[in-house]
Amino acid sequence: MTQRPGIKIKLQLYCADAIAMGPGKADLLDAIAREGSISGAARVMGMSYRRAWLLVDVMNRCWSGPLVETFPGSARGGGAKVSALGEAVLQHYRALQARLAGDTSCDDARALDALLRDAPLERQPE
Amino acid sequence: MTQRPGIKIKLQLYCADAIAMGPGKADLLDAIAREGSISGAARVMGMSYRRAWLLVDVMNRCWSGPLVETFPGSARGGGAKVSALGEAVLQHYRALQARLAGDTSCDDARALDALLRDAPLERQPE
Repeated sequence: MTQRPGIKIKLQLYCADAIAMGPGKADLLDAIAREGSISGAARVMGMSYRRAWLLVDVMNRCWSGPLVETFPGSARGGGAKVSALGEAVLQHYRALQARLAGDTSCDDARALDALLRDAPLERQPE
Repeated sequence: MTQRPGIKIKLQLYCADAIAMGPGKADLLDAIAREGSISGAARVMGMSYRRAWLLVDVMNRCWSGPLVETFPGSARGGGAKVSALGEAVLQHYRALQARLAGDTSCDDARALDALLRDAPLERQPE
């Protein structure tokens, strides 16, 4: 199920006008699961704590329950973990992503691939 | 093959770092086919002529041949049409889009749908 180079599929899930899940939020969940805190996840993803917190806040309000649970910390600050619901959402999201990527081996995708140049032509001087 | 509300799939085709085809460029091609000119297409799409011209220019340099052919105009300015190659690319792109949209009736998509709220919870006062 590898996605063809040259074909990019962005999967977003909306809750009314809010983006409940997308590539960036899914990566943030993975990072929170690894790092054990929102601040740690923000750091490894190269985003501000505020931005990470806002993304978590949107996720937590869009699904049937919170995807990230925070708890008061020790001396080194609070911690966070991905909830069971968050793990389930992430798993379905990754599975759907993989399914979409698998579609890029269909005839239409192959036809498009064959018609694409490896690099754009230079712009002609006017 | 209707796409579920709440699930948005954005399909982009890259030629090196340039976006050779995506939702906006496909819509622009449709508009050029209908309007018969880049300026007319820009108008109905609510974008500047310059922006439409730049999008056409990228498309024309990314594929094995131009997707849009322009020709010198009469008193009312030049015209443009979608080439046979442009029509073929557009057709494959739309077919692939429809195929991806069809994937949103799989179990993972249904599971995600069932877990999404209809609207985000209000943000709690701190």
